[in-house]
Amino acid sequence: MRKFGSAVLTMSVFAAAVVSAQSTRNLLPVPAAFEWRTGRLGFDTAFTVAVRGFADARLRRALDRTLRRLEGRTGLTFSRRPITDSTTTTLVVRADRPGMPVQGVEEDESYTLTVNEGHAELHAPTVVGVIRGLETLLQLADADSAGPYLPSVTIQDHPRFAWRGLLLDVCRHWEPVAVIERTLDAMAAVKLNVLHWHLSEDQGFRVESRRYPRLQELGSDGLYYTQAQIREVIAYARDRGIRVVPEFDMPAHSTSWFVGYPQYAAAPGPYQIERGYGVLDAVFDPTREEVYAFIEGFIGEMAALFPDAYFHIGGDEANGKQWSANPRIQAYMRAHGLKDNDALQASFNRRLLRILTRHGKRMVGWDEILHPDLPKSVVVQTWRGPESLGQSARQGFQGLLSAGYYLDAMAPAESHYGVDPVPDSAGLTPEQAQRILGGEICMWGEVVTPETIDSRVWPRTAAVAERLWSPRTVTDVEDLYRRLRVLSARLEELGLSTETHTHRMLLRIAPGVDLAPLRTLLAALEPVNLGGRMNVDPATQLTPLTALSDAARPDPPLRRDLAGLIHDLRGGDPTRAAAARERLSLIFQSWRDAAPGVAAIAVRAVPAREGVPLAQELADLGAAGQEALSYVASASPAPQAWREARAALLERLQHPQAHLRFTVLPAMRELIQAAAGGP
Amino acid sequence: MRKFGSAVLTMSVFAAAVVSAQSTRNLLPVPAAFEWRTGRLGFDTAFTVAVRGFADARLRRALDRTLRRLEGRTGLTFSRRPITDSTTTTLVVRADRPGMPVQGVEEDESYTLTVNEGHAELHAPTVVGVIRGLETLLQLADADSAGPYLPSVTIQDHPRFAWRGLLLDVCRHWEPVAVIERTLDAMAAVKLNVLHWHLSEDQGFRVESRRYPRLQELGSDGLYYTQAQIREVIAYARDRGIRVVPEFDMPAHSTSWFVGYPQYAAAPGPYQIERGYGVLDAVFDPTREEVYAFIEGFIGEMAALFPDAYFHIGGDEANGKQWSANPRIQAYMRAHGLKDNDALQASFNRRLLRILTRHGKRMVGWDEILHPDLPKSVVVQTWRGPESLGQSARQGFQGLLSAGYYLDAMAPAESHYGVDPVPDSAGLTPEQAQRILGGEICMWGEVVTPETIDSRVWPRTAAVAERLWSPRTVTDVEDLYRRLRVLSARLEELGLSTETHTHRMLLRIAPGVDLAPLRTLLAALEPVNLGGRMNVDPATQLTPLTALSDAARPDPPLRRDLAGLIHDLRGGDPTRAAAARERLSLIFQSWRDAAPGVAAIAVRAVPAREGVPLAQELADLGAAGQEALSYVASASPAPQAWREARAALLERLQHPQAHLRFTVLPAMRELIQAAAGGP
Repeated sequence: MRKFGSAVLTMSVFAAAVVSAQSTRNLLPVPAAFEWRTGRLGFDTAFTVAVRGFADARLRRALDRTLRRLEGRTGLTFSRRPITDSTTTTLVVRADRPGMPVQGVEEDESYTLTVNEGHAELHAPTVVGVIRGLETLLQLADADSAGPYLPSVTIQDHPRFAWRGLLLDVCRHWEPVAVIERTLDAMAAVKLNVLHWHLSEDQGFRVESRRYPRLQELGSDGLYYTQAQIREVIAYARDRGIRVVPEFDMPAHSTSWFVGYPQYAAAPGPYQIERGYGVLDAVFDPTREEVYAFIEGFIGEMAALFPDAYFHIGGDEANGKQWSANPRIQAYMRAHGLKDNDALQASFNRRLLRILTRHGKRMVGWDEILHPDLPKSVVVQTWRGPESLGQSARQGFQGLLSAGYYLDAMAPAESHYGVDPVPDSAGLTPEQAQRILGGEICMWGEVVTPETIDSRVWPRTAAVAERLWSPRTVTDVEDLYRRLRVLSARLEELGLSTETHTHRMLLRIAPGVDLAPLRTLLAALEPVNLGGRMNVDPATQLTPLTALSDAARPDPPLRRDLAGLIHDLRGGDPTRAAAARERLSLIFQSWRDAAPGVAAIAVRAVPAREGVPLAQELADLGAAGQEALSYVASASPAPQAWREARAALLERLQHPQAHLRFTVLPAMRELIQAAAGGP
Repeated sequence: MRKFGSAVLTMSVFAAAVVSAQSTRNLLPVPAAFEWRTGRLGFDTAFTVAVRGFADARLRRALDRTLRRLEGRTGLTFSRRPITDSTTTTLVVRADRPGMPVQGVEEDESYTLTVNEGHAELHAPTVVGVIRGLETLLQLADADSAGPYLPSVTIQDHPRFAWRGLLLDVCRHWEPVAVIERTLDAMAAVKLNVLHWHLSEDQGFRVESRRYPRLQELGSDGLYYTQAQIREVIAYARDRGIRVVPEFDMPAHSTSWFVGYPQYAAAPGPYQIERGYGVLDAVFDPTREEVYAFIEGFIGEMAALFPDAYFHIGGDEANGKQWSANPRIQAYMRAHGLKDNDALQASFNRRLLRILTRHGKRMVGWDEILHPDLPKSVVVQTWRGPESLGQSARQGFQGLLSAGYYLDAMAPAESHYGVDPVPDSAGLTPEQAQRILGGEICMWGEVVTPETIDSRVWPRTAAVAERLWSPRTVTDVEDLYRRLRVLSARLEELGLSTETHTHRMLLRIAPGVDLAPLRTLLAALEPVNLGGRMNVDPATQLTPLTALSDAARPDPPLRRDLAGLIHDLRGGDPTRAAAARERLSLIFQSWRDAAPGVAAIAVRAVPAREGVPLAQELADLGAAGQEALSYVASASPAPQAWREARAALLERLQHPQAHLRFTVLPAMRELIQAAAGGP
């Protein structure tokens, strides 16, 4: 049995990286405007940095982080002595002012970075702009045979949308501070600027309340952030130019609140922390004054803890069952002319809005809060679709797009990349379009743990980060994927487990053995989406998330690598075609070789057993691929019976197994068509 | 160019793992007594646990961690409902008492674990014993074609030595709380029970003092533990049955103290945090009362913060230069009849001892504190050698062995494994031998960062952990390495980066390219020891530690794999010999193939350039290996000229380059001798 699968599968990655730099180099997101010139600034130990203009501790920390990362990459140790002589300074960093005391939607994030022969200058109106520019500088840094350098360039950059967020659900599964902080580092690397922190849910209440301590004492399994930790995270985020918007979901998704405070629910308790997922019944009683007193007490405490101007109240998926079942609530609705549960929730939202306003906050909520009675100061976040966003903009509401940016769909980066918050088809007036503040990527936590979250969030999130920052004309999917590969590796520098994820997870499944057969198998597979998983095998909060599907990576590189090789095989260039044939043959052979290896591992590694039938199918695919290569190389097309049998095989493999599906089927379909003499 | 190097190199690992379970299975450290029986306890969703006897939150948390890890490995979700019916309980956990309120050297860590058909029982006198037994249970858990299970066994276990420590130097390089905590998890996995926390040094003062805040404000670059974090770590350690012994090094290794408090030094300031390494001059002035008042104030504060009965005052490497250069100190020595600097330090230590005694602590220090004037309550930790330890035991001092356990020697696990704290050669009486409490592994921090520390500490530390826990007759090196492989993989489950270390570090060096050539190269290399590195190229605290040598792994598996294959090649079994020849041939080919790959990567990856000559040398080794295989296979031995040229090659490769040395040379030497017809 030969075991070179895993090495073979990365070959084409190497080929992609040695091509000469393309016009976007490794910049992600692509800047608003840039112009390359010949010339360079070489890094050596004489490299010096001077800070001119405004400087504060935040700027100095950002600069120090940047220098440490440059030192780590180049192996050089740069001087930290203050520079007084401008003529010999290599890099000058200049900010005009600190930026807003609490970063807001209006923050100026623009910057200009100019690199000339031996000299670079980064200028920004605010420290946040400098922070953005330093990340660009890190992405520019390159090396060639003459050594490490920055290429000569002028970059004038600013974001297309002011609100570029990532939602982290830390309730369905707990994520410790370390996960949040490394995620903030990664967000800063791609210029995202809002952490939307989903802090309460049916499955857990994750913040320390001093006023209502039973919230965390009874509602969190002991897994919550202390107020000191919240402050630490907010400071960490501010250092990276990132706002922190808390979400406390009301009136539904609120079971965990009622474990400690059942008296505020619409149905009597007792309540337990929910372990299952889905739309549940627990809901606040919007008809009693003591409920609002409780909420106002809580919001007052949180409004002081979280400095951001916005406060997210959720508002989604209230099924109204407890309201409908409660005669007293029904009587209240009749007495107040509230014709249905939507009207009841709207009245609840109006009260929330008054509370938030008293505490100096603007309200954000999901689609469901959209109601004609609400004032236009409310921001609507849409999970329903772009139409919903356009509709709210026409009604005068500011909006955020999240439909199309759900990571639990396990969709490839390119599909998220294609979703524009203001597509041409929306037909909005410029004034209406301006109400669309931006968007947020959503990482819901049902089947995500601290071990798997990096691989689920990254690098796909970077595709949306580019959509929200770069000009709308930046749409080259091929170029995006080239840059995502480099970014994914760079995130390991920041402590994330993106590239090493699968190997780490497989080490638990089968410690001390050669994992190459399992890695070859997983390289061809991706996890199914949340719905697909839950429909087959409903997970709860207590289900271990350590299966092969958890070790697999969404949007694995092999899908595109294989398609590219098959494209080369069929293209007009005989040299490329021959090289592609050789590589494809090795890949298909590795698929055939993996099956006995997976079977051998599975004997003593129970979670690997799900992989045995999949590995057999991959071997079948490998055999089909090798036969197809022979037909393509020969003069005569494959007979129809062969083609039909192989098409049936692909059809059969469409069906997910063990929460996994093959990502290589479209490419294989094309190859089989080619073997049959198809176009 | 074929690129299957990295997969080939792990082949023999796989082969090792599928051999049938040996008598120690995956137990590490090997228990004091154990007896396998036929039969098993299979895991399924009906698995239940009952706690009988004494139970506290510490026990419940340990049990919950154990169940989570078992769930993660098996994919099963176990019931957490309290069990009332003993007859159906699968696992019964029983402790007699909580153990000491502050864990001490006298803590009972023993336990008995019995697994029978369908039922297991873990019994221990203390909760600490239960914690030890649960780790054993996790190491017992296995799987075969019938599913996951525990094998039937009776284990009666207790440690050989009461003090089994790991020193972490967090001063030369800062290590955040997350690193400390994951290290504690790993320590618990191999039953180590003391974290020796080296908290002050010339290069940094790492603890918040409220009484003397300039210690951390000026002496730490902002990198220190708050008192809340110290308490968190101590609680985390206690949960795992681990004591925390702080070390504040005095009178030397103390520059960072004097940045904020120069008035207590023996020479006038100002002082800066030291960036260089070595034995430096800064030292306390032992002749002034205000110095002792300051030290007593500080120790009083720390004695309250750290509950352990022991307190480490360092005491090493005071070069006395500042004392000799200070006329006032010289006059004091004459006036008090102190004939030399050793006597002066002894007088200082007597004062320290009085202070520690007042605050209820016992004193620990390095060899240098050993002085006839000190009472026998002092514990001496020896870095000098086993003779020094024996000598102090004969004088009546309790002692700890660290000589032979320095991880920065970059020595293989087997060399540490062979160092016994009480070797036969020591010739101690039983009473003297009893004074040797145990030992401590030392991880000094000069060239270790949060990114590299796991790979430097683990899995080698586990070899010493076994030496200190298991009976002295447990000495099978082959079996140790087999178990270390599994342990290293298991540590990734706990969040350490042992197996993924090299890949992570290479991702920074060359993001987005196929790293197989670099991995093939590094698999044959190991980092040189600290002295070897510093002599060639003195690192400071500011030197980036991101080079190829930092990506390399100490004691890499290939050294032993290759030796094993060559052993098989020369052994009497023709089938094994043929298999070994085939594998060796693939390995040697991968060495030849790696060179052009490394060269291609190095064009755009500056830190990879150090690898280019090394890769060429590895290719030369590969060519020599393939030639040797041919000679071995042929009837006629290699000519003398060939042998001499290859011997010269090996001789040349002995010389380290880029802080790296080849680990495969002994095996290659044997192969070349075999090719030349040697024995």
